[in-house]
Amino acid sequence: MGGGLKRIAILGSTGSIGQQTLEIGRTFSDRYRIVGLGAGKNATLLAEQVTEFQPRFVSLESATHETQSPAWPSDAPSAQPVTAEEMASCPDVDVVVVATSGKAGLVPTLAAIRAGKHVALANKEVLVMAGAMVMAEAERQGVEITPVDSEHSAIWQCLRGESRDEVARLILTASGGPFLRCKEKEMAGITPEQALRHPTWKMGPKVTIDSANLMNKGMEIIEARWLFGLPLHRIDVVIHPESIVHSMVEFVDGSVKAQLSEPDMRLPIQYAVAHSQRLANPDLPRMDFGRPRSLNFEPPDTGKFPCLRMAREAAEQGGTYPAVLCAADEVAVDLFLAHKIGFLDIARLVEDTLDRHRAVAQPTLEQILAADAWAREQAAKWRPR
Amino acid sequence: MGGGLKRIAILGSTGSIGQQTLEIGRTFSDRYRIVGLGAGKNATLLAEQVTEFQPRFVSLESATHETQSPAWPSDAPSAQPVTAEEMASCPDVDVVVVATSGKAGLVPTLAAIRAGKHVALANKEVLVMAGAMVMAEAERQGVEITPVDSEHSAIWQCLRGESRDEVARLILTASGGPFLRCKEKEMAGITPEQALRHPTWKMGPKVTIDSANLMNKGMEIIEARWLFGLPLHRIDVVIHPESIVHSMVEFVDGSVKAQLSEPDMRLPIQYAVAHSQRLANPDLPRMDFGRPRSLNFEPPDTGKFPCLRMAREAAEQGGTYPAVLCAADEVAVDLFLAHKIGFLDIARLVEDTLDRHRAVAQPTLEQILAADAWAREQAAKWRPR
Repeated sequence: MGGGLKRIAILGSTGSIGQQTLEIGRTFSDRYRIVGLGAGKNATLLAEQVTEFQPRFVSLESATHETQSPAWPSDAPSAQPVTAEEMASCPDVDVVVVATSGKAGLVPTLAAIRAGKHVALANKEVLVMAGAMVMAEAERQGVEITPVDSEHSAIWQCLRGESRDEVARLILTASGGPFLRCKEKEMAGITPEQALRHPTWKMGPKVTIDSANLMNKGMEIIEARWLFGLPLHRIDVVIHPESIVHSMVEFVDGSVKAQLSEPDMRLPIQYAVAHSQRLANPDLPRMDFGRPRSLNFEPPDTGKFPCLRMAREAAEQGGTYPAVLCAADEVAVDLFLAHKIGFLDIARLVEDTLDRHRAVAQPTLEQILAADAWAREQAAKWRPR
Repeated sequence: MGGGLKRIAILGSTGSIGQQTLEIGRTFSDRYRIVGLGAGKNATLLAEQVTEFQPRFVSLESATHETQSPAWPSDAPSAQPVTAEEMASCPDVDVVVVATSGKAGLVPTLAAIRAGKHVALANKEVLVMAGAMVMAEAERQGVEITPVDSEHSAIWQCLRGESRDEVARLILTASGGPFLRCKEKEMAGITPEQALRHPTWKMGPKVTIDSANLMNKGMEIIEARWLFGLPLHRIDVVIHPESIVHSMVEFVDGSVKAQLSEPDMRLPIQYAVAHSQRLANPDLPRMDFGRPRSLNFEPPDTGKFPCLRMAREAAEQGGTYPAVLCAADEVAVDLFLAHKIGFLDIARLVEDTLDRHRAVAQPTLEQILAADAWAREQAAKWRPR
């Protein structure tokens, strides 16, 4: 274990954020050592990553403690097999990058916080499902959760050096996804293939679909609420198709600060991992003002994109509602990607599940996980009206 | 003199920035007390201001120590007549707002710094003429100079909380003025009346003309150099016709921070006077993202706007060159406003004067003032080629 090197464990190392975190690890091999790699199902890529980075710990969800499962190549190097939770709380880890998606990150994130780790969080459902509990635990442990989402990184950057009581509102930008200009009546026919083509960001399938119907932005409102401790009515969304302004903060004097860059997730990743230190990285693109460019902004159409409204309402109702939102959405996106339901059915499925839910206020982890399980069961049974 | 009230003296109180500073004084009468008012020639407005604010000190340049000059209304209230320099260094003053234009602010600003005052600086020529000396004196006295220019205020806001060694470059925005889309061959015929119509900002005549030919932006490069201690090659200019993004900072990681607001000088004024505290001010406009809006950026055309290049070159050569630039420009703008020379002659006059100048390196105040006097004399004799 190299002297002053920060030791990083990545949960979800084979996903888009995970792979880009490894790129940062390569670029700054003088600062970081990858000591843990965890993945869900992609054993082949995980094995390659293990070969390159020689981590001490490896976790493969589908292998359930046996890295020598059939999916694990027999010539892969040996690293100690652990669960994601064990990896997140291992004493030889300094930073845990939670780059999983959906529900998968919740329990390992709590484990990392309880073990006093610095958490770089890309898995927004962790805070959507259990924000109150996760933030309270982080406060209790004196642990900071640094955001990897480009929007929350932007807000975090804009808040740097500012007094929290001088903040008026947060303004999350949204690209608007590939269907921003799509007519409402044409949206029912959207296919998974069309929805997976995001205009400006390269992301995993779940977050790409969530971006296409603005559910992602709705979840980001909830995430921002917990990360920055602002009430929901002081968190706005504005459509910005170019994805150059990653988000903004308005202060009580009317001044607005914005963070900009060419879209590249490696910037918020390295900023989160370095805990707000700015590292010179020649691989990252520079904003080019040497050619004419136009940045456009418009209010979101919540009639066409009901998920944005639904997420906000679930957050306002609180308790287990946001966990149900997440669970129902995860099932719905899977069904949509499998061509089993239509694009607009995602919102309908989530709304119906929320409507049927009997929420628990101030839930425990067990109650959140129970609401999640209930919602998945309900969602799986859902049929188009 | 009210208990905890900050005592403000305004040099140039009858100008555009001066009047808007008084609006801030009215809005925050619980925080500020206007104890000094100084003007150049507008005795009538100055008398009105004295009646309203009841300052202890008043200075009228044209009256040369006699506020009871013919221009001073006989029914105006009495305040102690002083020179601008005396007002700037008076022990009963906490903040000196230097809202004069051209050369007028230099000596009073130095007096304020030497007396340990907080200086809110709107008069950019002070730093263009004598930046090295002024900043050295401020450092010696432990005095901070807070910028009132919207561009420098934006940069100052973007730098807040950031580490200076993580700054890659400053990006000053420029509206481009009313002639951004004017054909080069049509520029010779521009009249003072056309040039005084600035598309987005309401300003005094000198700075409005300087904005029309981008001399103002050139001077701002020099001002930024001194205020923020960055080399000239790390200060760029980008045209942004909407004047919403007031300037930006790029960091070593490629991240860019920008400060935005609807154009209103009261925001940077109150931020400068409150020394970077953000005061809730319901009179200030809020950024409206509830309607579609477009922010555009393009590189400046230094062929069409040679003043931008000339100012940068004068700064690179250093010594007394920037003082000569200021003096020649001040004379040239007066001649243009008096219809004695054409719009394009402003740049020619300044360039010819710079060409003829034999500069002094690391000049003293006396040498700067001598260069200024020399340049004015030369400029007055200049005739169109």
